[in-house]
Amino acid sequence: MKGFCKGLAKSVGVLALLAAPLALTASPAHAEVSGETAFIFNTFLFVICGALVMWMAAGFAMLESGLVRSKNTATICLKNISLYSVAGIMYYLIGYNLMYTDVTGWIGSFSLLYNTSDAELALLGADESTEALIAAVVENGYSVMSDWFFQMVFVATAASIVSGTLAERIKFWPFIIFTTVLTAIIYPIQGAWTWGGGWLSEMGFSDFAGSTIVHSVGGWAALVGAIILGARKGKYGADGRVTPMPGSNLPLATLGTFVLWFGWFGFNGGSQLALGSALDASAIAILFANTNLAACGGVVAACMLTQLMYGKIDLTMALNGAIGGLVSITAGPDLTNHFWSIIIGGIGGVLVVLAVPLLDKLKIDDVVGAIPAHLVCGIWGTLAVGIFGAGSLVTQAIGVVAIGAFMIVTSAVLWLILKYTVGIRVSEEEEVMGQDKVELGMEAYPEFGRN
Amino acid sequence: MKGFCKGLAKSVGVLALLAAPLALTASPAHAEVSGETAFIFNTFLFVICGALVMWMAAGFAMLESGLVRSKNTATICLKNISLYSVAGIMYYLIGYNLMYTDVTGWIGSFSLLYNTSDAELALLGADESTEALIAAVVENGYSVMSDWFFQMVFVATAASIVSGTLAERIKFWPFIIFTTVLTAIIYPIQGAWTWGGGWLSEMGFSDFAGSTIVHSVGGWAALVGAIILGARKGKYGADGRVTPMPGSNLPLATLGTFVLWFGWFGFNGGSQLALGSALDASAIAILFANTNLAACGGVVAACMLTQLMYGKIDLTMALNGAIGGLVSITAGPDLTNHFWSIIIGGIGGVLVVLAVPLLDKLKIDDVVGAIPAHLVCGIWGTLAVGIFGAGSLVTQAIGVVAIGAFMIVTSAVLWLILKYTVGIRVSEEEEVMGQDKVELGMEAYPEFGRN
Amino acid sequence: MKGFCKGLAKSVGVLALLAAPLALTASPAHAEVSGETAFIFNTFLFVICGALVMWMAAGFAMLESGLVRSKNTATICLKNISLYSVAGIMYYLIGYNLMYTDVTGWIGSFSLLYNTSDAELALLGADESTEALIAAVVENGYSVMSDWFFQMVFVATAASIVSGTLAERIKFWPFIIFTTVLTAIIYPIQGAWTWGGGWLSEMGFSDFAGSTIVHSVGGWAALVGAIILGARKGKYGADGRVTPMPGSNLPLATLGTFVLWFGWFGFNGGSQLALGSALDASAIAILFANTNLAACGGVVAACMLTQLMYGKIDLTMALNGAIGGLVSITAGPDLTNHFWSIIIGGIGGVLVVLAVPLLDKLKIDDVVGAIPAHLVCGIWGTLAVGIFGAGSLVTQAIGVVAIGAFMIVTSAVLWLILKYTVGIRVSEEEEVMGQDKVELGMEAYPEFGRN
Repeated sequence: MKGFCKGLAKSVGVLALLAAPLALTASPAHAEVSGETAFIFNTFLFVICGALVMWMAAGFAMLESGLVRSKNTATICLKNISLYSVAGIMYYLIGYNLMYTDVTGWIGSFSLLYNTSDAELALLGADESTEALIAAVVENGYSVMSDWFFQMVFVATAASIVSGTLAERIKFWPFIIFTTVLTAIIYPIQGAWTWGGGWLSEMGFSDFAGSTIVHSVGGWAALVGAIILGARKGKYGADGRVTPMPGSNLPLATLGTFVLWFGWFGFNGGSQLALGSALDASAIAILFANTNLAACGGVVAACMLTQLMYGKIDLTMALNGAIGGLVSITAGPDLTNHFWSIIIGGIGGVLVVLAVPLLDKLKIDDVVGAIPAHLVCGIWGTLAVGIFGAGSLVTQAIGVVAIGAFMIVTSAVLWLILKYTVGIRVSEEEEVMGQDKVELGMEAYPEFGRN
Repeated sequence: MKGFCKGLAKSVGVLALLAAPLALTASPAHAEVSGETAFIFNTFLFVICGALVMWMAAGFAMLESGLVRSKNTATICLKNISLYSVAGIMYYLIGYNLMYTDVTGWIGSFSLLYNTSDAELALLGADESTEALIAAVVENGYSVMSDWFFQMVFVATAASIVSGTLAERIKFWPFIIFTTVLTAIIYPIQGAWTWGGGWLSEMGFSDFAGSTIVHSVGGWAALVGAIILGARKGKYGADGRVTPMPGSNLPLATLGTFVLWFGWFGFNGGSQLALGSALDASAIAILFANTNLAACGGVVAACMLTQLMYGKIDLTMALNGAIGGLVSITAGPDLTNHFWSIIIGGIGGVLVVLAVPLLDKLKIDDVVGAIPAHLVCGIWGTLAVGIFGAGSLVTQAIGVVAIGAFMIVTSAVLWLILKYTVGIRVSEEEEVMGQDKVELGMEAYPEFGRN
Repeated sequence: MKGFCKGLAKSVGVLALLAAPLALTASPAHAEVSGETAFIFNTFLFVICGALVMWMAAGFAMLESGLVRSKNTATICLKNISLYSVAGIMYYLIGYNLMYTDVTGWIGSFSLLYNTSDAELALLGADESTEALIAAVVENGYSVMSDWFFQMVFVATAASIVSGTLAERIKFWPFIIFTTVLTAIIYPIQGAWTWGGGWLSEMGFSDFAGSTIVHSVGGWAALVGAIILGARKGKYGADGRVTPMPGSNLPLATLGTFVLWFGWFGFNGGSQLALGSALDASAIAILFANTNLAACGGVVAACMLTQLMYGKIDLTMALNGAIGGLVSITAGPDLTNHFWSIIIGGIGGVLVVLAVPLLDKLKIDDVVGAIPAHLVCGIWGTLAVGIFGAGSLVTQAIGVVAIGAFMIVTSAVLWLILKYTVGIRVSEEEEVMGQDKVELGMEAYPEFGRN
């Protein structure tokens, strides 16, 4: 049941998955879409949507590059491309099996590597494609590695969230070690609970594309890290004053947000996990429309609220409003009343605008606003399924709390181990100089002096 | 006839759409592609191509960010993400119905909201996918919301064109109000005339993917706005001298152009409106090839002409040459002689190079060159269908004039109302300071001083 | 045999292509995917993956923009959009026929233009889609122009590699002339040897998506050009000292790398050349997974090695490590043991880190590191097929040497002709001033002073 179970928590997706094997045995006159055609559609959906989600890694890189100060820009670029790379390797070596292979309630298999199925190997290696060989492959519903690829890019998304919050002060290699453990073990274990068919899935917890499982998970890891790591030097004065440390390149941050928005169609759309029936195609159309509407609602709400609250519109709030709207709809983008998507996303935008100053009041230094957008809106979106969708509010809350508790404990342990062994924070002088000079020995913009 | 009618004006597309229902009744041996398979293909085409067109919003944002001065860069970013968001919501609330629902010659339905069809709701909500449920969904040819999404991103494109021309001086909120009315009412009304199956469609006006209906419409709104708003302070001297106000970040403008080019494959390719037959697939291949060749022609022509005219090659002319080539082919990208695409696009590139100084002579201040690229080339491309394609030159000209007149009148009324109520222009001091500081209270590049 | 033969060298792809015509004659019960459905899948794969590869042109533009100094940034942007445009036109006018039409061992047809097939024209122009018309089109397996488009973007990739190495000193128009000949004649001739079904293909040389045929070809042209052109003024001191000339915008370079990575899924995935069977879909899933894993391996290896060698991590090495990993897997991304992809890509990352200082020792000035990433890793990846894949190491080496020799000779002749006629290098004063001011009369970042 590898990878298959992500759909078990989805009212729409599950029908398609159950329908697929039936189609194989039905006569051609009844089966409008042949099993092999459905297999191609499903596989192609995974690889195309997976590529779109991979592209979100560029979005995070640009968003974070634009929101840090220029003395730390090259470092945040390096962190982003490195974390994606580490995520890819670790999820191949350990993570995927832990999340999807033989999950028995709490945890999958600790086996190493993950490869193409025997049926596919047989078909690929055969001199001729016989009906039996094709049938054996098609029975799985989609190609094994297409699912691996699609799931891999999700773990990278979770890891990307962490880098932005902790930017400008966390050392490169300790961050990479955290990412390694997060993507190899922590994320897959909690992922197995729902998408792997574990206990939360059995309880009826519903998180279509990962408001909690991906976004809040990244958000929790970021929040715990931010508390343990402490704020940037000079951010919070003793007198309670907050010193703004404005991002150095706002068009890049805007670009990053657009990249995320674009990639999110793959994130939510591909989470239908199947394209091989009219039902799946209809569902995916709805997923695209709702995803877009929620982001629109987030932007508009954030713009209006900042105008009302501050008399100005803040570009970074609008950008995080878009992301907040997207995260908010991610737990339940399969709503058939699309108007609710605007509302759910709009509330996400409001939450972002309210949570940013709240974090500052708590002296939690989140460089890019990832905690409001991914954690707060992730919780909201997951609960919204219990309000607007088919889920139960209680079950949704249980999922949020369980995964939150797991993430707080595991992240805290890991961050503290790193803190008291290799150390996680650059020195004061290094922070003033900037990580680019200290850790990389280079400048992101050597010619655009601030003098 | 929702959304369906966009294809009525297309010689190639219409065959495919007519063929689709036939396939459903034919026997399996004759129908090579089953109705359900075609439904999936058509729906998937819409969502993938729609996502590519959504990505063009990022292209406009980057193009315009790169071509304004840095003191207005954050504002233009905010305008771009906001206009896309407003377009999405308004086209959902009002616009789509006005353009596609029960169009009777001039106008569609003024009903609110637009949602999934009853047939799709029944399939999605059923315990089991029966043949009858599937057949009821498949009969429509594609999923209802996939078409909505695809049409939505087109209205956003039209709105994106306006922001660039009016940059650096138009106030944020009045611009957003204009965008709201443009995307909710103005664009949909003229769109109904052709793509909604209205009077221009009945007359035989042909605009495959919207040289006129999308690009000129945006261009007219921009032109009228530029005249009413006036030029930027200091742009045109009393002695007729034009003061160059060079864009602050040309690599971003280059990136934006590449994004537009990439997204245009979705724009023109998806406008086939169907992928579910060999004919459609062949047509789409031709659309991709012609789109690419026309853009290539635009770049090469613009480079050569600027070299000849000025002894230098101007990067921004090359970029606008690409866009001009793309706009020029958009009315008729279904040419089967691909060589003409290079010529049509090349003429677009020439028109851009000639129109830019002409606008300056008329003291019409178009910050990014959107009027040459989208309006002038939009007209040229629409007329070109009457020369190289299947259309009649007279009918094409009627469409250009009718839509132009409608846009001039409605835009002028709306801009003037805004001018004499809320005001549309920032004050002189604010213009000197830049909109980023005044309206947003932030800087796009706080560390890259000009001092 | 137009375009078709690219697959002949591919163990996996060839089965699918052979199977396609068989499916047409089989009875519906046996043929799970109808011939027309397969035709649509294959065509759609080409256009979508082709668009992704087109997008790589933006990646090269951003990578190179970020790695040159700001005084040459606008020029490198112009070169990138121009070379893509020239490639598109020349490959339409001459290149494609030379590479794929009636290849007899060494060379294809020198005929002009390339257009839609008669069968497709008949179907597109018919009043009704008859079975006979559809069958005639479907027999080809895919739409003719979709293949043209897909092959076109590959030649543009090869040309893109050259611009980066020679940046900051080569004149615009001579570079464009070189690109014209490269894309019209040089690339197609060597491409015909393998993908056109020529002598290397008959010998069994295997280069799945073009480690040698695309990347090394660009790399050889760049290397020869770099030697003939000479290093940038001041780069190499008489005392053997190397003066660093750091890139002016590293986030853009990072963005460019992510764009390339994203586009590479189209590059390698689309090179399966077919999607219309379970076998093809399985193969494509594997191609996506391996492509991703190799890039991950390249990044991680480059980061670790630079840390070990220099005590710092170099962002540009990590970026080139990603590209090196991608190039390395491109000759054989169809490995079914995915672990080897990490190793092959990782070795690519190591080669990049070692080759960059080696080139400096040889006083070969490669501005962006394209020779290590594309030429060195291209050779490595091609040989790796003889080690890990189905190919013979000897045959692979013959292909590498033959194409290398051809490229060295033809490039040298062309560069030398240009050098001694129009001249290829800007003057010393112009080099100091920067090409943007001299050749374009503009600045890429007029407000971000270096004073």
